[in-house]
Amino acid sequence: MVQRNLAQRSDPDSWAGEIARARERLAVHLTKTPLVESDFLSRELGRPVLLKLESMQPIGAFKVRAALNSILTHLDECRSTGVVTNSSGNFAQAVAYAATRLGVESTIVMMRGASAFKRRRTEAFGGNVVLCEDSFEARFAATERIRVETGLRLLHPYNSPETIAGNGTLGLELLEQVSSAFDLYVPISGGGLIAGTTLAVKAGRPECSVFGVQSEANPSMKLSLEAGRPVRTAPAPSLADALTVLEPGSQTFPVVQEHVESVELVSEEGMASAVRLLAVEQKLVVEPGAAVSVAAALAAPRGRDRPLVCVLSGGNIAPESLRELLAAGS
Amino acid sequence: MVQRNLAQRSDPDSWAGEIARARERLAVHLTKTPLVESDFLSRELGRPVLLKLESMQPIGAFKVRAALNSILTHLDECRSTGVVTNSSGNFAQAVAYAATRLGVESTIVMMRGASAFKRRRTEAFGGNVVLCEDSFEARFAATERIRVETGLRLLHPYNSPETIAGNGTLGLELLEQVSSAFDLYVPISGGGLIAGTTLAVKAGRPECSVFGVQSEANPSMKLSLEAGRPVRTAPAPSLADALTVLEPGSQTFPVVQEHVESVELVSEEGMASAVRLLAVEQKLVVEPGAAVSVAAALAAPRGRDRPLVCVLSGGNIAPESLRELLAAGS
Repeated sequence: MVQRNLAQRSDPDSWAGEIARARERLAVHLTKTPLVESDFLSRELGRPVLLKLESMQPIGAFKVRAALNSILTHLDECRSTGVVTNSSGNFAQAVAYAATRLGVESTIVMMRGASAFKRRRTEAFGGNVVLCEDSFEARFAATERIRVETGLRLLHPYNSPETIAGNGTLGLELLEQVSSAFDLYVPISGGGLIAGTTLAVKAGRPECSVFGVQSEANPSMKLSLEAGRPVRTAPAPSLADALTVLEPGSQTFPVVQEHVESVELVSEEGMASAVRLLAVEQKLVVEPGAAVSVAAALAAPRGRDRPLVCVLSGGNIAPESLRELLAAGS
Repeated sequence: MVQRNLAQRSDPDSWAGEIARARERLAVHLTKTPLVESDFLSRELGRPVLLKLESMQPIGAFKVRAALNSILTHLDECRSTGVVTNSSGNFAQAVAYAATRLGVESTIVMMRGASAFKRRRTEAFGGNVVLCEDSFEARFAATERIRVETGLRLLHPYNSPETIAGNGTLGLELLEQVSSAFDLYVPISGGGLIAGTTLAVKAGRPECSVFGVQSEANPSMKLSLEAGRPVRTAPAPSLADALTVLEPGSQTFPVVQEHVESVELVSEEGMASAVRLLAVEQKLVVEPGAAVSVAAALAAPRGRDRPLVCVLSGGNIAPESLRELLAAGS
């Protein structure tokens, strides 16, 4: 595959073929995740609110789309070399799951301070976890050293065509599940999910509007949009650990810059409250970094009547964190 | 409609028309609930395990099917008289929801000791709650007094053709969502859910097998099957408050007797553990009286390979109970 001028490739039509091929690759591995109307949120917002349940994916998060597509695109090579990635969260689990399923060895570099819950799950899915110091720089360095020394194929959590096309399959599903133009709220970390989804949705139904959502603590994409280029920000602690990133991807940033209406920021209390609401009213366990889409939708200006779709990107919250958030609301 | 010899009417074909009409009535009010494959449970049991998410219904439980069908079947009468029912749980919320949606006044008789969580929700859906003493006898008596004095139309939570046909729509959805013969695990309280679902499934695909599930604390249907007739049992405390009932319905019992393979009993620890597992591994908030289907499936003999479907009949667990169950597992 010729990958020309990747950083500038933000034209939805130019991605349609790759996203369609990703969908063919994933077809035997994943089923379409449900899109359910939330009666509670629809009444609250006065228009249909639909929730895309990526939390129902095998590992409990959307990342399995990108992990499977990244390995399947280069399956023979991955089987002979194995794969390595750096992630302390859902991509770690996704790579472990996808690799094991496809007969590939996987090594995942995690920070020592990563959530024990996510580490245990990564190992349970068959990944070899290698620990490093608690910084993004140390994690990049450890990953690069392993890649060079062992020849493992590197899988990028968000900044690669395979990741973007894999995530694009979510957009194709939405086009089938909603029959008219809609507003779409998508959490942003490195931008892989929103880039893929936006490219698919805009190619199929350009009148849809996409809104990105980040935490106030880690507004890297928002600051980058203001600066007009990807800028590096210092990671800050947040309930939404899944949304902590050093900077947007060089390949994802231009897509957001060109096609996303705005990036909304959600406070810690806003995401905590959305996690509670989703558990109590909607019977869904959703992690804070995914519940931000609902928090942003609740804060959106009223008066639009097209359906509003929130991507619930994952449900991997540790049981003790869920307990604390439920207690805070009572 | 002629209702001849109702207690004996357990032939699936004789119900097909009523269930099909119920589905037409409900079509503009409810969408098909998702059926998701549980990756975790499928690996655990070595065959596809599919979860029917009735927790995604508007009130968070399947009961809205029966409530809507009961009112829609006699809509003009219900609009002129209003409706009354006795329930401390999901049927209370379902009647309040359905009545409000259809422009009907609803009165719900609840025991004083009913969960504050469920009472608040019933009122939030627009139901007029009337409290009575803490016994099933007092609740029946209060309901009957209100019915006679005010002329409200009585809606039965499980023992009426409208309820059974309304619940049958769940079975029709399963036949569309699963393409081959399957084993079905269904929680039993009064038997309305399993009767309706079984009639629909057996009419469409007689080779399916249906298993009922109750709590060890309240095994009324199991004891009734052993006795060969509906017997009255003393209600005992259980996490599965939704499954507490005095006796099976006269109309639901014969269906179970003729068409259900067996009734399995689940311990309190078994249902607590299933609630935890569904929250942590499957990202679903499920009430204990619904999680029993998964608990029974986990205890089922291995060696069958057809898909196993668990009905997750509701998600209305109070946040403080969910917190306690999550804590017990850590």
